[in-house]
Amino acid sequence: MKYTLYNYWRSSSSWRVRIALEHKRLAYTYVGVPLLEGAQRRDDYAAMNPMRQVPTLVVTDDGGAQHELAQSLAIIEYLDETHPTPPLLPRDPIARARVRQLAEIVNSGIQPHQNTGTLAALAKLGQDGPAWARAFITDGLAAMEAIARRTAGRFLVGDELSIADVCLIPQLFGARRFGADLTNVPTLLRVEEACNALEAFRRAHADVQPDAAAPQQS
Amino acid sequence: MKYTLYNYWRSSSSWRVRIALEHKRLAYTYVGVPLLEGAQRRDDYAAMNPMRQVPTLVVTDDGGAQHELAQSLAIIEYLDETHPTPPLLPRDPIARARVRQLAEIVNSGIQPHQNTGTLAALAKLGQDGPAWARAFITDGLAAMEAIARRTAGRFLVGDELSIADVCLIPQLFGARRFGADLTNVPTLLRVEEACNALEAFRRAHADVQPDAAAPQQS
Repeated sequence: MKYTLYNYWRSSSSWRVRIALEHKRLAYTYVGVPLLEGAQRRDDYAAMNPMRQVPTLVVTDDGGAQHELAQSLAIIEYLDETHPTPPLLPRDPIARARVRQLAEIVNSGIQPHQNTGTLAALAKLGQDGPAWARAFITDGLAAMEAIARRTAGRFLVGDELSIADVCLIPQLFGARRFGADLTNVPTLLRVEEACNALEAFRRAHADVQPDAAAPQQS
Repeated sequence: MKYTLYNYWRSSSSWRVRIALEHKRLAYTYVGVPLLEGAQRRDDYAAMNPMRQVPTLVVTDDGGAQHELAQSLAIIEYLDETHPTPPLLPRDPIARARVRQLAEIVNSGIQPHQNTGTLAALAKLGQDGPAWARAFITDGLAAMEAIARRTAGRFLVGDELSIADVCLIPQLFGARRFGADLTNVPTLLRVEEACNALEAFRRAHADVQPDAAAPQQS
């Protein structure tokens, strides 16, 4: 199998897939898709990803056939099923459901309200995009904190890294970018520290990707 | 195991879980949560579901312990793992990824932009909620149609029912409710017909739930 990841340094859904690839120690080719130039809307990209979003993971199998996969959680579940060690889901069904619940709070509860397409649509209406994003981020992280207080060990669900943690870290980056208040989510911040100590998270971080803007431009 | 589903007749994410329960032939207790009265924001409900959304599935195990699960796809994956027959995911890893990709186009790409909380937030800003929802529905369904033209058999991915179909049917109901144009998604409409012929989909339909409004009120 060969992997090519079409993605964008600061995109949180791209970042999740990078963490999963690094955690599984899977080599991949990085292709930057410059969202601010609208590259995701070009026909050649849309043919791979009809939602015109990042990321897209192109999987080339040993026979040379190519499969273009999109939607970050679908990609991560695929990677976890095809490379189960080290795992990104616990074994117990209730614990697995809790991991996916937390992941979906980010994936469907927060991120759709702060992504490039939504911010562009708000701008067209003359609305304050960052304020819109901040409200959903604040509510979503508060819900995650309430759950994590009961489920967290070293990571969000117990002591093993999971897809929930993979979603949390890029979301906290987004929270700071949009100016959300993080004083009421100490459990999430403690888990963030544990994640940041891991090599996979350092290698997947937005700021170290080849298409990352210099600090003053971001 | 005993199941209690806190949900709302017209909520598309509630409806998905109902289809999954019916497909697996699992009996459950139906508890209506009147969203228009704000019942999902009450403290007793928020203690079960800190996102203050429907659905919540309360699983009572044989020892009497209760587990409150939320986020529709997390719940459906849990039901599929604990009751694998009849399945809601294919066996092939690429096909599973395709099913989850299609499900996430609905779950994170469309539905967050049309749900009760988002429409309320738009109304506060004096914005046209149905127009906002319609734009995301139109783009998302077009992307699903493009994928389905390559993957669909009787259902969205091949000839077996999957989580992708479970997400499609309530989303098409939402599309009509918000006045989206469906002339360019013939593959989706053909799959809808195949789903509507199934007993599970008839039993899970919004209009036949105990809390459904009379037609003139909906």
